[in-house]
Amino acid sequence: MPSFEYKLSVLKSGHCVNKERINLDMNLQPGLRLLSNICRIRGFASQVQAPLTSERYKVTRGNFAALNDKDLGYFESLLGKTRVLTEESDLEGHNTDWLHMVRGASKLLLKPKTTEEVSAILKYCNERKLAVCPQGGNTGLVGGSVPVFDEIVVCTSLMNNIISLDEWSGVMVCQAGCVLEALNDYLMERNFIMPLDLGAKGSCQIGGNVSTNAGGLRLLRYGSLHATVLGVEAVIPNGTVMDCLSLMKKDNTGYDLKHLFIGSEGTLGFVTKVAIQCPVKPKSVKLAFLGMDNFQSVLETFKRAKQDLGEILSSCEYIDRASITSVTDNLNVKNPIGDFPFYMLIEASGSNETHDEEKLNTFLEKIMSNGTVTDGTVASDSSQMLAIWALRERIAEGLLYDGYVYKYDISVPLTTFDDFVQDVWKQVGDDVVRVCGYGHLGDSNIHLNITSKTYDPKVTSKLEPFVYEWTSKKKGWRSRPSNAQLEENV
Amino acid sequence: MPSFEYKLSVLKSGHCVNKERINLDMNLQPGLRLLSNICRIRGFASQVQAPLTSERYKVTRGNFAALNDKDLGYFESLLGKTRVLTEESDLEGHNTDWLHMVRGASKLLLKPKTTEEVSAILKYCNERKLAVCPQGGNTGLVGGSVPVFDEIVVCTSLMNNIISLDEWSGVMVCQAGCVLEALNDYLMERNFIMPLDLGAKGSCQIGGNVSTNAGGLRLLRYGSLHATVLGVEAVIPNGTVMDCLSLMKKDNTGYDLKHLFIGSEGTLGFVTKVAIQCPVKPKSVKLAFLGMDNFQSVLETFKRAKQDLGEILSSCEYIDRASITSVTDNLNVKNPIGDFPFYMLIEASGSNETHDEEKLNTFLEKIMSNGTVTDGTVASDSSQMLAIWALRERIAEGLLYDGYVYKYDISVPLTTFDDFVQDVWKQVGDDVVRVCGYGHLGDSNIHLNITSKTYDPKVTSKLEPFVYEWTSKKKGWRSRPSNAQLEENV
Repeated sequence: MPSFEYKLSVLKSGHCVNKERINLDMNLQPGLRLLSNICRIRGFASQVQAPLTSERYKVTRGNFAALNDKDLGYFESLLGKTRVLTEESDLEGHNTDWLHMVRGASKLLLKPKTTEEVSAILKYCNERKLAVCPQGGNTGLVGGSVPVFDEIVVCTSLMNNIISLDEWSGVMVCQAGCVLEALNDYLMERNFIMPLDLGAKGSCQIGGNVSTNAGGLRLLRYGSLHATVLGVEAVIPNGTVMDCLSLMKKDNTGYDLKHLFIGSEGTLGFVTKVAIQCPVKPKSVKLAFLGMDNFQSVLETFKRAKQDLGEILSSCEYIDRASITSVTDNLNVKNPIGDFPFYMLIEASGSNETHDEEKLNTFLEKIMSNGTVTDGTVASDSSQMLAIWALRERIAEGLLYDGYVYKYDISVPLTTFDDFVQDVWKQVGDDVVRVCGYGHLGDSNIHLNITSKTYDPKVTSKLEPFVYEWTSKKKGWRSRPSNAQLEENV
Repeated sequence: MPSFEYKLSVLKSGHCVNKERINLDMNLQPGLRLLSNICRIRGFASQVQAPLTSERYKVTRGNFAALNDKDLGYFESLLGKTRVLTEESDLEGHNTDWLHMVRGASKLLLKPKTTEEVSAILKYCNERKLAVCPQGGNTGLVGGSVPVFDEIVVCTSLMNNIISLDEWSGVMVCQAGCVLEALNDYLMERNFIMPLDLGAKGSCQIGGNVSTNAGGLRLLRYGSLHATVLGVEAVIPNGTVMDCLSLMKKDNTGYDLKHLFIGSEGTLGFVTKVAIQCPVKPKSVKLAFLGMDNFQSVLETFKRAKQDLGEILSSCEYIDRASITSVTDNLNVKNPIGDFPFYMLIEASGSNETHDEEKLNTFLEKIMSNGTVTDGTVASDSSQMLAIWALRERIAEGLLYDGYVYKYDISVPLTTFDDFVQDVWKQVGDDVVRVCGYGHLGDSNIHLNITSKTYDPKVTSKLEPFVYEWTSKKKGWRSRPSNAQLEENV
């Protein structure tokens, strides 16, 4: 599959830009969702240019063809002039990520509207050996949707039609460029919800969610996209349309190839349509924010929540002190409870408010009376809930204020979450501002973040391969390739 | 992958044996689970020999090597004499299925205990070009686990160790040969359950469940095995062990290859270990059995159940009149409610009995007061529930009494379930005893069954490709290959 660059291979880790270079306006209202912050950061950050990825990471361009006028003529004949963009200003937002961590040098942005157009584009590029970079909402934190060299950016933004919703089965079919939040809004009006929810939902697109196997806050309840995506239509590099667009919850016809497109980052094919199973909209949502004195209490609270909340447990987030203080200290957001080494954010959503309330009260009574949890607060109206969610969702933003951020998105057994953070602290503690961990307890997925005042290669060399080896030893996974893989791929 | 026969390819459809040839003892107690009946059928049916699959379907043996003494010597050196079985009596149960629909002529049964032994067997067979038939509990209805010619049967029965259960995350790891019910019993003692449940649970093995992507009665609630299986270890034909045994709910390391082993019927690899996410055991289970006057009411009841029962809805089965009467007329099982063209069986299970009862009552009140449902009964103790489940689980057995059964396991949009049955009736009604449909509403999966007094090739030619084309037109799937695929594969 020659015309697809394996872009992840050139990214060593998700290091974030230094706050000095971003010069953020920090007068943000507490309670704003991360999404609004992304927009603000983007607005300010666009004045600063990230170094070219190819130069920063010293990568050599693959043996791809260079774009010429004849190519442009072909694309214009296919899409019309308005959807073939070559101006630097048009390409700016597509050549870099919102954190300004990586930057490519694409000279061409194509905006197909249909599967047939995507197919024609890929077929042509494959024959001409032109490199392609598929791009959705471009909200990723690891640069996977940004060109590295002069790849043609093929953007799904105009492929944003909802094709069907079967109100009996809850199965929705839509094009890849539909924005997650728009899909959720559409469904909410019809008494359904999307089975996934992310901080970036206002910009990220379902095709990108599927291609990156995005997890998020509802995975605990509704499962990963391997569970909820029933069908995928994808175009492979030679232009062939793979119709794996099943609408059936059970489909045993032949090999279930759609799973290969879920999470393969566009390297196997360009996702053009998605069929997804949508749950019924919960009638009641409640949120508890709890503080614990030790990690064992975190584990016990999680187990208790699974027992007592059972089928209404919809989110279970873990946040350590160093993560919370990045928000309270750096962003002036108020922590509504006392100071604790560990916090948990537990969401319950169900079909009967009275029942849900009773379950939540029983759960809270148990964990408070036996001393597992010593302080907490419960929110049930949406503004209170947003304010609490902000403590979790604004951590990524808060960390930027420390200076430079080394980011790792890792799954390890949940019992090892704190050991991991402590071991990393021992490994780099003297050289850094902060080592912190937060993430999805239900999915065993921890966001490990280390910050230093400015970028320090000594920290990187202490972190890698240390973090990868630690993860591997625990049979976990990490979101980025190890050095060994990098050397192999670059 | 030369040493794996694609056994499904030789099966045209799941036609069942004639009752005269089985001579069943029908004095079964109402309320017995299908499993007990399977054992009884087996006991009686073993006196009758199915025709050889290769002769019945006129299939030609592939160009595989023939077993010799040197091969036997190798296997004995590897496994010891007691796990290398060549007596006809040892092989009898492994050369045929429980319905005595298909029969192979294997001369060798191997019983490995470890992945390493499976690897050595497959490596040797691949090099010697000996055909292999992986076999679990051999409970399938479509003959996928039975040899067609003289394939070596490699049976997982002795690979029955539970390796670990993480009581924090609910992730269990076990060998492929663990029996589903044994796993569920083990988990129940530890406050968990298996996320899948099948009538054959007393004999079927988890490796076979995974290889066939078994659905069953809990799919609606906990999702398919693509959702609940976190990891798979499989041996590919050259003996290489594929370690996709992730224990993580989220794992985005590279391509997610384990999904290819789920549902590929052993054609890509021999599943040796499984890691599965186990839900917490529900504290309360209730079962409603309802009668409806028309199919629209079935759909409305399903939609209402999703709304009112929400997160506690755990099964939603659909049964038409012709299916129910196969049990009531042929097996003398009592139908506790009146005579209706359509029935539904709705199970609710949750973490709080009072809440669950209230939800169920609200739901029932609504559908009864608006006339959607005119009669029904609710069971909450286990013997009552078993008696009601028998009405659903004994249909396959009841149908045998009509004579010959033409079986199709099909997913189509649930709104078309009854149209499908009616159209098939119009197509073959004059030539058959019964056309009936029952199955999993939540999964859009209908079991279409047609019976005739004796096998009639005219019925087959009217059913095929009619059923396949109907399914395909609705973008559904069927459990068996179409004629076109058959011709391609045989």
